[in-house]
Amino acid sequence: MTHALTQGALEIIPMATVEEAFQRAKVFPQGSVILGGEMRNKRISGFDLGNSPREYVSEKVNGKRLILTTTNGTKAFHLVSSGREIFVGSFLNIGAVARRCLELDRDLLIFPSGDEGNFSLEDTICGGMLIDLIAKGEKQSISLTDASCCAQILYQRFENKLLEAFHLSHHGKGLIRQGFEDDLLYCAQIDIIDMVPDFKNGVIRPEEGKQ
Amino acid sequence: MTHALTQGALEIIPMATVEEAFQRAKVFPQGSVILGGEMRNKRISGFDLGNSPREYVSEKVNGKRLILTTTNGTKAFHLVSSGREIFVGSFLNIGAVARRCLELDRDLLIFPSGDEGNFSLEDTICGGMLIDLIAKGEKQSISLTDASCCAQILYQRFENKLLEAFHLSHHGKGLIRQGFEDDLLYCAQIDIIDMVPDFKNGVIRPEEGKQ
Repeated sequence: MTHALTQGALEIIPMATVEEAFQRAKVFPQGSVILGGEMRNKRISGFDLGNSPREYVSEKVNGKRLILTTTNGTKAFHLVSSGREIFVGSFLNIGAVARRCLELDRDLLIFPSGDEGNFSLEDTICGGMLIDLIAKGEKQSISLTDASCCAQILYQRFENKLLEAFHLSHHGKGLIRQGFEDDLLYCAQIDIIDMVPDFKNGVIRPEEGKQ
Repeated sequence: MTHALTQGALEIIPMATVEEAFQRAKVFPQGSVILGGEMRNKRISGFDLGNSPREYVSEKVNGKRLILTTTNGTKAFHLVSSGREIFVGSFLNIGAVARRCLELDRDLLIFPSGDEGNFSLEDTICGGMLIDLIAKGEKQSISLTDASCCAQILYQRFENKLLEAFHLSHHGKGLIRQGFEDDLLYCAQIDIIDMVPDFKNGVIRPEEGKQ
């Protein structure tokens, strides 16, 4: 999502199902909307783009509204939609997300989107890295739930060896089996994007002044 | 639970609520039954014993049937009750549990009972230690879910420093605050009991020939 916004997508509308995505696309003028996403790592018939970040290049998404359906990520937004401020994070922009969290100076819920409803190793490590950055950036000591404490420890185990974790994880193994190993290499990059998209009223938009 | 069985309790009946515990006790002859447990770390009015293992001495429980209600553990039994074989484990008997699991030679579900519905650091570490023992005892490589992989890593972080984890955890901190630090010391002991209770038809009984 963050990658697509850096390539000029105007906004991203996460939808929980394929049917809802098609319905929502009809609302906008033809040609202004791109349908993207996957279901269980497979392309969706009738969609413009799949799930590989490498497909979301400027020539395809610049100036467009992106309607996105993924197995895990888009459902996550609906689950956290009651949050006061909802940021979109990954390893790609994690330093920027930590900065925004520190600015907020409030209690945080970190929500790893998971793997088809199950615990996901790489998502939890990403959450753990965010906790680690916040703990280091915060002057006062922070208070962690047991799960957050576990995520931080998990991150510390894989610090500087993220790809090792991607190769151990259920989702990572599946992507490699299906020929998407290059996506893992892309997604294991840290801090290559300095922008924190936020989710508000059902829509993900780039951070002001950062696109 | 394991401790009470080593002190001569005939069997343990886990009940999900205090009301059910009182109802169930009425079925048996007076004097043959002991009511034990806690709710949110507090004693239950009308119960014979609380939640501290040190209360479950032979003079109190030998030859008795124990009806037990705890915030987390007893609910867990109801959630896993469809299992073919259900073992009761803790750090106290973990080597014996690993041995039984290796004998079974089947897929395993390890169910940390948690902390009032939340992820519990010490329970997950205990599950991770069981995985670690099974992985070391099994000739073939074992296949782990992402959550199991995480539990094993968590255990490796606290290997030989279990008390450090107990002091970090939400439940551990609560017990210390309420004056139960000695219980943590007791429960952090590894392999002091060589018996694996099992749960069948709603009742936990000692391993045959081991009481």
